[in-house]
Amino acid sequence: MDYLLYLIPVIGILSLIFAFYLASKVSKQEAGNKKMREIAEAISEGAAAFLTAEYKILVIFVVVLFLFVGFGIGNWLTAVCFVAGAVFSTLAGYFGMNVATKANVRTANAAKEGGMNKALSIAFSGGAVMGMCVAGLGVLGVSGIYALTKNSDILFGFSLGASSIALFARVGGGIYTKAADVGADLVGKVEAGIPEDDPRNPAVIADNVGDNVGDVAGMGADLFESYVGSLASALTLGLMYENAAGALYPLSVAALGLLASIVATFFVKGDEKSSPHKALKMGSYVSSLLVVVFSLALSKRFFDNYNGAIAVIAGLVVGILIGVITEIYTSADYRFVKKIGEQSETGTATTIISGIAVGMRSTSMPLILICIGIFLSYQACGLYGIALAAVGMLSTTGITVAVDAYGPIADNAGGIAEMSGLDKTVREITDKLDSVGNTTAAMGKGFAIGSAALTSLALFVSYAEAVKLKTIDILDYRVIIGLFIGGMLPFLFSSMTMESVSKAAYRMIEEVRRQFKEKPGIMEGTEKPDYASCVAISTKAALKEMLLPGIMAVAAPLGVGILLGTQSLGGMLAGSLVTGVLLAIFMSNAGGAWDNAKKHIETGYHGGKGSEAHKASVVGDTVGDPFKDTSGPSINILIKLMTVVALVFAPLFIAIGGIL
Amino acid sequence: MDYLLYLIPVIGILSLIFAFYLASKVSKQEAGNKKMREIAEAISEGAAAFLTAEYKILVIFVVVLFLFVGFGIGNWLTAVCFVAGAVFSTLAGYFGMNVATKANVRTANAAKEGGMNKALSIAFSGGAVMGMCVAGLGVLGVSGIYALTKNSDILFGFSLGASSIALFARVGGGIYTKAADVGADLVGKVEAGIPEDDPRNPAVIADNVGDNVGDVAGMGADLFESYVGSLASALTLGLMYENAAGALYPLSVAALGLLASIVATFFVKGDEKSSPHKALKMGSYVSSLLVVVFSLALSKRFFDNYNGAIAVIAGLVVGILIGVITEIYTSADYRFVKKIGEQSETGTATTIISGIAVGMRSTSMPLILICIGIFLSYQACGLYGIALAAVGMLSTTGITVAVDAYGPIADNAGGIAEMSGLDKTVREITDKLDSVGNTTAAMGKGFAIGSAALTSLALFVSYAEAVKLKTIDILDYRVIIGLFIGGMLPFLFSSMTMESVSKAAYRMIEEVRRQFKEKPGIMEGTEKPDYASCVAISTKAALKEMLLPGIMAVAAPLGVGILLGTQSLGGMLAGSLVTGVLLAIFMSNAGGAWDNAKKHIETGYHGGKGSEAHKASVVGDTVGDPFKDTSGPSINILIKLMTVVALVFAPLFIAIGGIL
Repeated sequence: MDYLLYLIPVIGILSLIFAFYLASKVSKQEAGNKKMREIAEAISEGAAAFLTAEYKILVIFVVVLFLFVGFGIGNWLTAVCFVAGAVFSTLAGYFGMNVATKANVRTANAAKEGGMNKALSIAFSGGAVMGMCVAGLGVLGVSGIYALTKNSDILFGFSLGASSIALFARVGGGIYTKAADVGADLVGKVEAGIPEDDPRNPAVIADNVGDNVGDVAGMGADLFESYVGSLASALTLGLMYENAAGALYPLSVAALGLLASIVATFFVKGDEKSSPHKALKMGSYVSSLLVVVFSLALSKRFFDNYNGAIAVIAGLVVGILIGVITEIYTSADYRFVKKIGEQSETGTATTIISGIAVGMRSTSMPLILICIGIFLSYQACGLYGIALAAVGMLSTTGITVAVDAYGPIADNAGGIAEMSGLDKTVREITDKLDSVGNTTAAMGKGFAIGSAALTSLALFVSYAEAVKLKTIDILDYRVIIGLFIGGMLPFLFSSMTMESVSKAAYRMIEEVRRQFKEKPGIMEGTEKPDYASCVAISTKAALKEMLLPGIMAVAAPLGVGILLGTQSLGGMLAGSLVTGVLLAIFMSNAGGAWDNAKKHIETGYHGGKGSEAHKASVVGDTVGDPFKDTSGPSINILIKLMTVVALVFAPLFIAIGGIL
Repeated sequence: MDYLLYLIPVIGILSLIFAFYLASKVSKQEAGNKKMREIAEAISEGAAAFLTAEYKILVIFVVVLFLFVGFGIGNWLTAVCFVAGAVFSTLAGYFGMNVATKANVRTANAAKEGGMNKALSIAFSGGAVMGMCVAGLGVLGVSGIYALTKNSDILFGFSLGASSIALFARVGGGIYTKAADVGADLVGKVEAGIPEDDPRNPAVIADNVGDNVGDVAGMGADLFESYVGSLASALTLGLMYENAAGALYPLSVAALGLLASIVATFFVKGDEKSSPHKALKMGSYVSSLLVVVFSLALSKRFFDNYNGAIAVIAGLVVGILIGVITEIYTSADYRFVKKIGEQSETGTATTIISGIAVGMRSTSMPLILICIGIFLSYQACGLYGIALAAVGMLSTTGITVAVDAYGPIADNAGGIAEMSGLDKTVREITDKLDSVGNTTAAMGKGFAIGSAALTSLALFVSYAEAVKLKTIDILDYRVIIGLFIGGMLPFLFSSMTMESVSKAAYRMIEEVRRQFKEKPGIMEGTEKPDYASCVAISTKAALKEMLLPGIMAVAAPLGVGILLGTQSLGGMLAGSLVTGVLLAIFMSNAGGAWDNAKKHIETGYHGGKGSEAHKASVVGDTVGDPFKDTSGPSINILIKLMTVVALVFAPLFIAIGGIL
């Protein structure tokens, strides 16, 4: 079956070629009038400037960790793979975001010239570039390294590289986007009373840049990390339990899943009669269906039974169901969001309390689904099955990321339409595209958390193998101590990231207030606001604030592993996995629910825009911003990164032994 | 050493006699003028009515669970002990609250007639009745059952009785007090613009009743449960690892700790020059110091070494330090609360975000302290040491509960002074006493959580023994599933209790609004508001809303144990312990911090009362109310109760086996 091993990277390359084709298709579109192009240019420059500044810092981080890995475990091949993982993640982020910042203005122009379907097609193509890059580079990287070296252990080095970049991309991007968003909203909308995306708002460009660096680049890096982590884990566990076939099976599922995603992109076609949501869903359904068929065929071929496919399909179905559950808790079509809207009538406090209650309650079904996924996949293939379930859930990553990245592109298109004063009908089209994007974003977040949970669990199992622990016993006091410390870390981490958003937003608020005060001509439209200074503030604040949580995520497993030993570290990883998944779901869904409760009121319920209920719902939405776009999603990375760090440095911990 | 076993219950009885002496001392005090006595009567009647109604429901619950225990595990002696535990808890709650509702008006009168010292003395004596009842009945119950039967296993039946009552007392009391508080505040203070405790507010009596049923009876039942649980666990583990001496040692520490608490009450003496806080702290320090000496002497006597004492002292010191940490995060003397106050200037959203961030951050130090406590006590005595640490932490329960219960008495005294129109100087004294009560309440909550964590852990170890599990291995998929489900339960439970407060408060708000509307004379002082209807609404709502979370707490471990088996149940208990402790600390401290940030602003910072910052801080405080007084503290009981249920029904789970 060796030829397969060389075929798989080829599919990865194919996907990149397809991404290139999509990108050039997007580039060829008309970018609209001069004003539109100017605005798009400013967004694109701001985004590129942030990524460049971020990567400069990350180079230092990568070099330091490279030396740490090399000297710490004495395996320079792993260290090199680490750098490769970091570079691949960077490439995916850079390329995907670059195209996204081209697609936004072209979507706006298509809405102006060609109507809904044309606009949907461009926005989705732009997102699909990110999707194909993430999945293509993931398959290429993992299968390429394994095909070249036949060494599975060093794959976790690649995974560590992906995780490190992902952490900073998610945390930095999350802080960037929310600082700009909160700053633009609080001063622009609330204090000055100008609408969203008004060109007079100095923070408006930064806000649109934020959508790209947070929701496109950050999200892409997050899923790249999960994708790579689950593949590396399934491959090593497969080798252990099922020999060569066990390693090839997950790679083949991923490769055919990638092909399925490519095929599925052709099914995403707008239809004047139905909603864009339906078109996007069609893409997901087609790719999922293909993966089911492929995984069954491959399982029969590799193992001569369907056990492998059961695990893969369990993961896939759980991922889809978590998305559905997320929609129920965060969409105004269902009772939870409506309830928050009602509570807004009795004031801000009850809005906050009911949103927190909804967020907490929304944890139960996803957790039960994950447990069912674990049960089924374990019954089918043991611990290897859990890793396969993660691979299954992530097998449609290509199309999932495409749909996710579509959202911020549509959002940006609306912003550009507003800022360049396009006709109201254009804005109506982009609004419709955007509102679908909000739902897909919430579902994408649920999916990201679900896949992070299964991936971390798979990596956790690999960790136990790596440090040669036969059991991690909760009755062992070292494990108990680890559990408590690990459980606490996501709380500490979330508190750090939320405070970071506060600090960064505070600086943005001051800057916007200063500009309004010093340049009274801005409000009258006679003077141009200084967009660049707001972009610079968000950039600087995000980069400064991402460091402490980032360092904590690497230092915590290293510190516990070295000081307390491998048993405590095992407990710590399990503890942070449990509380991390719960906090991430709680925060993401509470934030999503508040957001949509506000939008629900804005459509005319409970007094509509400007009512007291609306004011209360705006506070809920503002509290929800760092919940759903900074802290919540960053926890996904925290739990994966800590596990990968533990895994890569396993030889070091075994050598030192720890005090407990 | 058998004579000791009969001496210990005698000390329990001695403590009850002392409680009786204190109660009659309080009763003998003057109750003030007619108006004061009328108001006090209304509060006392409302509190008694609630407890009576609650106990009527609990009788049914106790009978059902009695039959469940008896038939389920076939041990009717355990079932009888369960009833005894429930009865003892009920007695402690009823007696303690009865005296508290006498002490409140007498404290107000003492402030009027005799000044600060006299008032402090009565309020503290009133609280000490609850303290002595809780600790006295705890020691009497556990040591009495063991002395009579020499059967340690049935003690968990007694513990289950204590836990069941505690759950309903905490949840019901918590919902009662916050429904009344939020209702009184939102309509009275915010809408009608009348001050706190104004007699024109129809919900004012219900609010004062709430302090008694929530903060006195609920808190007492909580600590009674921890106290009994830690003793039962230490006794059984002691028997297993150290024979008779191992069983007698924790009982002796508890008995001498009780004596130390009695002695310490005489050191709580007001001093015109220093603050009441100092006097209360003196009591805690004296009792702690005595426990250190006693535990060392007893350890030498029983084991011929100091290992037992090391474990006890580790627990004691960790408990004290958690109190100190709690103060740092929730008192306006330190930077965290000041920071929230600052954030109030930029609006409600930033107030909420910073409070949540402070609450989350505040989890780290207590968790690390608990880990240090586990480490030290395990090093000293193995798993038995963890149970001893819990006993050590709770050894000063007598004085701790006294200080805790002092708070609501002083709070009530202030309310009575306000409602009966006493002189401003009287209110100044009660305000001073009350403000100390706020700090001690926050510290008491931290202590309650810390002790719940160690007690649950000790009970968890006992559970593993009871179901004959040598390991509970996180690499076992059944344990992983349990961990996830268990981790989720505190989130689900908190969401339930918060929604309950919302619902109950909503009914209260409607009633207060109705009265103001239908009886316009209330505001002019010509018409008397209908206090009783508000009391009835709080009572009815609390009793109705406490059922679902209460049943869940019992049903979850039963369901998982029966369906999924003992391994999954072990994972579930560990998962809920970890997330439960974290959520409880987070919610309690965030609530305490918001409360004090509001008070900080009211003393004149950031614009003082009536400023925009103040309004934002009031919202923070209202969100914090269910956090700190309902959901947070209720989680303590949840994690203990679920573990005790698992422990008592262990024979059933072994017999059935579970599907996993």
